[in-house]
Amino acid sequence: MNPDHGPLIYEGKAKRVFQTDDSDRVLVEFKNDATAFNALKRAELSGKGRINCQISAHCFEILEAQGIPTHYLYQPAECWMAAQRVEIIPLEVVVRNIATGSLCRETPIERGKELLPPLLDLYFKDDNLGDPLLTEARLEKLGLINPRQRLEIENLALRVNVVLKAFLEQLDLALVDFKLEFGINKNGQILVSDEISPDTCRIWDQRNDHDKDRILDKDRFREDLGGVVDAYGEVLKRIQGVSSKPRTCS
Amino acid sequence: MNPDHGPLIYEGKAKRVFQTDDSDRVLVEFKNDATAFNALKRAELSGKGRINCQISAHCFEILEAQGIPTHYLYQPAECWMAAQRVEIIPLEVVVRNIATGSLCRETPIERGKELLPPLLDLYFKDDNLGDPLLTEARLEKLGLINPRQRLEIENLALRVNVVLKAFLEQLDLALVDFKLEFGINKNGQILVSDEISPDTCRIWDQRNDHDKDRILDKDRFREDLGGVVDAYGEVLKRIQGVSSKPRTCS
Repeated sequence: MNPDHGPLIYEGKAKRVFQTDDSDRVLVEFKNDATAFNALKRAELSGKGRINCQISAHCFEILEAQGIPTHYLYQPAECWMAAQRVEIIPLEVVVRNIATGSLCRETPIERGKELLPPLLDLYFKDDNLGDPLLTEARLEKLGLINPRQRLEIENLALRVNVVLKAFLEQLDLALVDFKLEFGINKNGQILVSDEISPDTCRIWDQRNDHDKDRILDKDRFREDLGGVVDAYGEVLKRIQGVSSKPRTCS
Repeated sequence: MNPDHGPLIYEGKAKRVFQTDDSDRVLVEFKNDATAFNALKRAELSGKGRINCQISAHCFEILEAQGIPTHYLYQPAECWMAAQRVEIIPLEVVVRNIATGSLCRETPIERGKELLPPLLDLYFKDDNLGDPLLTEARLEKLGLINPRQRLEIENLALRVNVVLKAFLEQLDLALVDFKLEFGINKNGQILVSDEISPDTCRIWDQRNDHDKDRILDKDRFREDLGGVVDAYGEVLKRIQGVSSKPRTCS
């Protein structure tokens, strides 16, 4: 069931954002649409929106409990999240614990290599440009954020990594890498925003050492491995197994 | 006429490097071969080798006169350069004064925008990977150079820019951007190496304000503008006009 909401503010590839009566609060609907390769590949995956919303809500709660500010407020329904209204900073902040994906196409670092310390990559969130990698110097030229904000974002991203990696580790899930987006609320505070789900994280099942079978994230969709929603569901099942309260609200 | 030389050590897309009797000295032959887009586009441009060799020799002499260490020793023949033997660091160090080329495909910065301060981009010199852009963090992971060497290379590249930009400016030539390679000699000293020519620099004629006609560099080849060798020759002619000694040696 859909919660009451105001007009649509923004529709992205995987989510819709709606106004509410409270100008500082929005409602985010998680869609079943799956896209990859800058939306060249598309599909509708029944159940994905619900699962990703619940995984995200849980991750945000864990981060908040560790003092990391997020846009998350509460979950009014299975596919819905209430969140603080923020201005999204057009950066994709990627933290990598294990080398894979574009990093291995763009450097000689071999797939599967553990990255210690983790590698932080910043990308300019722009579909037309294909979300290009940004050096520090290019970021400075673009003037999207000031140096203090850059430091804060990088520190937050690395703290998120410590918290989520440890949390998933106890579920026998390896956090390979993940993408964060940050937003700025009306008070100028920088918050972890968007979502944290198998659409935005690479997660490998440590109970499975098969190169492909262990993949529990969007790479199943990118690489046509099948069982996308089942894999996402497995992540949610393990998370719910340690959850202290039910993840499904009315 | 070719100078005496020993066996071929290395053949690149635009140059051949030969041993000499002196193990610390090599002879570099500048070829007429032109390549672009990671060698997908190829041509033989008669006269290019000679022109680029002479422009490079002159640029290296100007840099040396300003205390910037280079691999250049002398020019034994029109298409030949004697140089210190170095181990090339697999980095392409690009300094940009005016936005164009890949920067404008990879960021929203508009073509023609002056970049103050100049932008420094580091690329991993690897044809198989397509010479990918490197962030500081990725460079550190690759371990190609240590942080002290990175600083030294960046400082040298920015000093090269100050010297060459001022030199070309007095010839009504705008130094839009350029790529440097660095080598390490047997004493561990970092030297500006490779070549400095219209193959590796973007140069716009300030006596011409036509968007395409003013281009005096490899973009004429990349964009099929024609007149490639004539354009390179124009750069050489202006350089020779201010040269205090003849550029052609026997």
